[in-house]
Amino acid sequence: MIAAQYVGNKSFEIVPATDKKPDADEVKIAVGYVGICGTDMHVYHGVMDARVNPPQTIGHEMSGTIVEKGADVTGFDIGERIVVRPLDWCGECPTCEAGLTHICQNLKFMGIDTPGAFQSNWTVKARTLHKLPASVSLKQGALIEPLSVACHDISRSRLKAGEKAVILGGGPIGQLVAAVAKSVGADVLVSEPNEARRAFAEEKLGVKSVNPLEQDLAAYVDEWTGTKGADVVFEVSGVKPAIDAMTQVAARRGRIVMVAIHSQKPEIDLFQFFWKELELLGARVYEGADFDWAIDLIATGKVDVEPFISSVNGLKDIGNAFASMDNNPQGMKALVECNAE
Amino acid sequence: MIAAQYVGNKSFEIVPATDKKPDADEVKIAVGYVGICGTDMHVYHGVMDARVNPPQTIGHEMSGTIVEKGADVTGFDIGERIVVRPLDWCGECPTCEAGLTHICQNLKFMGIDTPGAFQSNWTVKARTLHKLPASVSLKQGALIEPLSVACHDISRSRLKAGEKAVILGGGPIGQLVAAVAKSVGADVLVSEPNEARRAFAEEKLGVKSVNPLEQDLAAYVDEWTGTKGADVVFEVSGVKPAIDAMTQVAARRGRIVMVAIHSQKPEIDLFQFFWKELELLGARVYEGADFDWAIDLIATGKVDVEPFISSVNGLKDIGNAFASMDNNPQGMKALVECNAE
Repeated sequence: MIAAQYVGNKSFEIVPATDKKPDADEVKIAVGYVGICGTDMHVYHGVMDARVNPPQTIGHEMSGTIVEKGADVTGFDIGERIVVRPLDWCGECPTCEAGLTHICQNLKFMGIDTPGAFQSNWTVKARTLHKLPASVSLKQGALIEPLSVACHDISRSRLKAGEKAVILGGGPIGQLVAAVAKSVGADVLVSEPNEARRAFAEEKLGVKSVNPLEQDLAAYVDEWTGTKGADVVFEVSGVKPAIDAMTQVAARRGRIVMVAIHSQKPEIDLFQFFWKELELLGARVYEGADFDWAIDLIATGKVDVEPFISSVNGLKDIGNAFASMDNNPQGMKALVECNAE
Repeated sequence: MIAAQYVGNKSFEIVPATDKKPDADEVKIAVGYVGICGTDMHVYHGVMDARVNPPQTIGHEMSGTIVEKGADVTGFDIGERIVVRPLDWCGECPTCEAGLTHICQNLKFMGIDTPGAFQSNWTVKARTLHKLPASVSLKQGALIEPLSVACHDISRSRLKAGEKAVILGGGPIGQLVAAVAKSVGADVLVSEPNEARRAFAEEKLGVKSVNPLEQDLAAYVDEWTGTKGADVVFEVSGVKPAIDAMTQVAARRGRIVMVAIHSQKPEIDLFQFFWKELELLGARVYEGADFDWAIDLIATGKVDVEPFISSVNGLKDIGNAFASMDNNPQGMKALVECNAE
């Protein structure tokens, strides 16, 4: 029973697991696999130390099996395979009362604001659980959380079959957005400078790609859409040129979903918002329905997450798992196996 | 039969009216009243000369009476009182084909890109006409175009009864947005530094107002909404501080309607779009339904536009009408009477 604690400065220490006995509304989970997220990489680089407050066990893209449950937990049994939707909401603010618990005014993100899943056992509230069907493996299960992010982005965009979507940025989330966009019947174009990522989009997902450093993206989209422009644009890159591109390539009444986190305030071409009646939609994490959708996409084979798994390391090797993802545009998703022998 | 031509440099010349015989799909209108719009003031200041190409007859907020009609015009009779929706769309681009003619990819704005209404007679396509009911005067009719802008803004915002709306900027359009917002049953707050405009909002429209230079607007809205934030924010000011205020005062999942034209690219707090899942909606001119709605609001007395009429001048006095509105925050709407004795 061990836990990997982030201790600051790109370092982890292996310590005994918290191994907390579940309260009445909680379950204890034997953790299966945990993916490394872009946010985990930010933590690794020390830029979130003030929020994470190391030493801290991080990790939130996980799958596992229930091993113990509190007295009030119904609907879940010991031995069931589950994933955790890692949000801890207050239930009392006006936003929670409106049913939008995922953007709760007092939201805590599990694995960042509270202890996470990089440990043998993780004890969490049962309200965060979603069941895994028999056809979804624990390995695939670790991809459900990032796939739910993509489902939420698509849901916010109101993307429909036959519409054309441009995805600015072909990192793991951009590619998952591409996969979900394709699954709803949209025509998908990924704009991404990195060759390996463009190859991933084309070969693994079967969508179009373009290198915006070599081709005029706006001209390409103009041609592709017969001057109409893209029905939906997903900004997943977080870089400045994409902020200009998003208003250029969007059709009149086009929807732009802001997936990337821009910590600086970029200059935005508001004139285009007026002229083309554009719509900008912020998207944050996911709702319960997005988890259900992501599970269904994997269970039915509509989205194949296997190509996203770049590596699997044991928990004791977590340092190597993080190092392997550091500045590695070819890595999509490194998994950490938390109960490996 | 005269026309007022804008000749550049804050000057007009009175010349013979174009007095064009209507083509088969056109009508000739004896113009009643024409309002002076913020855009007309921009033209007056010379900043749109490249687009307007003076000498040009401008003016587009109008009412009038049909005096002649083309052979193919049905549904309208000589003597009928009408207003013109001053948009000339191509009908052939993908956007027109999608029914969004008001943001046509080749849209011409009548009175800017083509001759306008500051003349005794104006000949226009019959497809631009909306009938005035008996209960709406020609004077009130000249307010229908700007009121339709406000209707379109409200329509884009999906504002509902009981919601709280903050309007940033209390100029003529901001006040009309406030009036329409109130008519749908929303709680309305106008943020406006000018005392006369705040008094207009409170005394003429019966809505709340705040001076953002003297009070902390975000704190005020926090208190007013019980920490929730404003359901809808209308940015109608065009000034930089409002760009920060709009993301601060909006509730989670709040809708921000971009009414003002920002010709510079402002720095926008995209992090708030992510964090609160905000929505930014561009709004441009109006659709046919917005004109019908505006006419109904005046006809039923739900919006009283009389207080907006600051002055009425004859067409020969158009120079004085424009001068009276120049840098005059107390003036709401100057009308020009185009067939006065």
